[in-house]
Amino acid sequence: MRHNFGAGPCILPQEVYKQAAQAVLDFKDGLSILEISHRTPQFEAVVEEATELIKELMNVPAGYSVLFLQGGASMQFAMVPMNLLSTKGFAAYSDTGVWANKAIKEAKMLGKVEVVSSSKSENYNFVPKDFVIPNDADYYHFTSNNTIYGTEVFNFPKTNVPLVCDMSSDILSRTVDVSQFDLIYAGAQKNIGPAGLTVAIVKDEILGKVDRVIPSMMDYKVHIDGKSMYNTPPVFSIYVAMFNLRWLKAKGGVAEIEKDNILKANALYREIDRNKLFKGTCAVEDRSRMNVCFVMEDSSLEKEFLRLADNAGFEGLAGHRSVGGFRASMYNALSINSVHALIELMQDFEEKNK
Amino acid sequence: MRHNFGAGPCILPQEVYKQAAQAVLDFKDGLSILEISHRTPQFEAVVEEATELIKELMNVPAGYSVLFLQGGASMQFAMVPMNLLSTKGFAAYSDTGVWANKAIKEAKMLGKVEVVSSSKSENYNFVPKDFVIPNDADYYHFTSNNTIYGTEVFNFPKTNVPLVCDMSSDILSRTVDVSQFDLIYAGAQKNIGPAGLTVAIVKDEILGKVDRVIPSMMDYKVHIDGKSMYNTPPVFSIYVAMFNLRWLKAKGGVAEIEKDNILKANALYREIDRNKLFKGTCAVEDRSRMNVCFVMEDSSLEKEFLRLADNAGFEGLAGHRSVGGFRASMYNALSINSVHALIELMQDFEEKNK
Repeated sequence: MRHNFGAGPCILPQEVYKQAAQAVLDFKDGLSILEISHRTPQFEAVVEEATELIKELMNVPAGYSVLFLQGGASMQFAMVPMNLLSTKGFAAYSDTGVWANKAIKEAKMLGKVEVVSSSKSENYNFVPKDFVIPNDADYYHFTSNNTIYGTEVFNFPKTNVPLVCDMSSDILSRTVDVSQFDLIYAGAQKNIGPAGLTVAIVKDEILGKVDRVIPSMMDYKVHIDGKSMYNTPPVFSIYVAMFNLRWLKAKGGVAEIEKDNILKANALYREIDRNKLFKGTCAVEDRSRMNVCFVMEDSSLEKEFLRLADNAGFEGLAGHRSVGGFRASMYNALSINSVHALIELMQDFEEKNK
Repeated sequence: MRHNFGAGPCILPQEVYKQAAQAVLDFKDGLSILEISHRTPQFEAVVEEATELIKELMNVPAGYSVLFLQGGASMQFAMVPMNLLSTKGFAAYSDTGVWANKAIKEAKMLGKVEVVSSSKSENYNFVPKDFVIPNDADYYHFTSNNTIYGTEVFNFPKTNVPLVCDMSSDILSRTVDVSQFDLIYAGAQKNIGPAGLTVAIVKDEILGKVDRVIPSMMDYKVHIDGKSMYNTPPVFSIYVAMFNLRWLKAKGGVAEIEKDNILKANALYREIDRNKLFKGTCAVEDRSRMNVCFVMEDSSLEKEFLRLADNAGFEGLAGHRSVGGFRASMYNALSINSVHALIELMQDFEEKNK
């Protein structure tokens, strides 16, 4: 039994693996999902169901389009300014981690950017709160969960400019009011499905307002018109995402999984705070439920703990090199039993090192 | 038993499906390939092996980089001019089909384009041959195989400007001298692997010569430096491509599969030419080995033939709407037995309609 705490591509439900494997052998009439034309009615139905499931699970209001794209959040870092940043205007960004910073870098290639808040000087260990978003910005961009540093934004900024959010690592893990946002995007490889797929949820009316020339593949409008099939989509990844979304719906939806995620996060943070060997790395009020970052009071013990964890079947617990220590990523499909197993391991280690 | 003549995503070898399904259930230590971090040594080894297999199978010379990207050929239509078309220069293109035409359209968004040859007025039923590529073009772009119209370029143009080729539908189906080219790209979903993956083979020295600002994800140089892992790659598609490339190597490589492909194409074209009910749609000397397009002398019989084919287990034989009739796509993994079965069906149909 492995406990996969990896940060992504990450654990998906076991039943999804079984359904995916079966589809690789036989999707319809003995044909594999890997040899199916995306223009078949069977696959068009898959894209439609996956689209509808996202709309239903996230309660996406009318006037928004749900898109399946390629290129990950990194491609969105460029697509967002390409579609929304006017040649004379500017965009407002918050710099709350490596990925937020990369988004800023890409936007700066295409136009003017104002960084309205940053926690960079504190190694991104908190989420800046009191800052002003200029009313004349073309849009404001932020990252709702910072995977590497383990912080999460629990109060979304209020603004009258279009609100754009990279939700790669906490989409579908908690209820959000989509109507507050104008553009949400997420690499699939956390709570949506396999790597190689990106989801964007776009408010239609924000598009078509810049005079920039936009290559077709970078143009949200082109993908909306093509119903996510402007060109050959990542067929398998969409199909597996559909299975995963069905699983989430059967679980009771986002509100139910959010309760589980809170239980999992509370249990682990409680142990980190209680256990004398360990400590959390970021501001308590900004602690992410998806990515729990922690270190040891005595860092010389970290290697041994990692080795023990590895032997005991724990996967992906090493922290990102820019933070060190440990990172326990606890996406939707991670069972609370895995969290309890980790807590037990930490308690055993404390006992041994008394 | 199904005979999959689909144009793509298309048939892959049966053993590749089995290996892919197994990896979905257990890639290493009980973990699925869908939950594996791309930064694990195990997956880094996969990317390296897949890269080396392409270099070996295509005999890629030193000085070229092999890249795994996302977005399909459609994304390459924009990436090519973004990386190679200078703001003051122009690019030369041949217009030999729908995809070539889309490539032209994208390039025109970014700069000046000269269409040096076109078969558009003849519904793309031949490959133009006598044309001049200006010596001062930034590059010349062509499509080596036109999937929709069933034509293929057998003599590559000679030019002293960088030669760029969309090889999506015939890459790895025949030997080509890569050293003649400066950039080759291909959507994976024909002879490489599953949809959601793109391969580019770039001569390093052609890069870095334009002054244009290139978003990171569109910059070949960024992906070369990142060894196809600048961001999270399409993990599963690369893994399956590796299996498929291994299969091709075990078959004896590209030169061996080319012999099979010639046999398959010759057999089917012979029947089309012999059978009184059928006729080919394009110039005999330009007939594609990958996509065989044909119609019936009496088009009112076409529906019935398609229905018979469908009942007999044939998949994907309907021609593209812009050509009509039939298209038999015969990619590497399609067995010659499937071709013989199709020929038999055509002969039975001829018998019935005497």
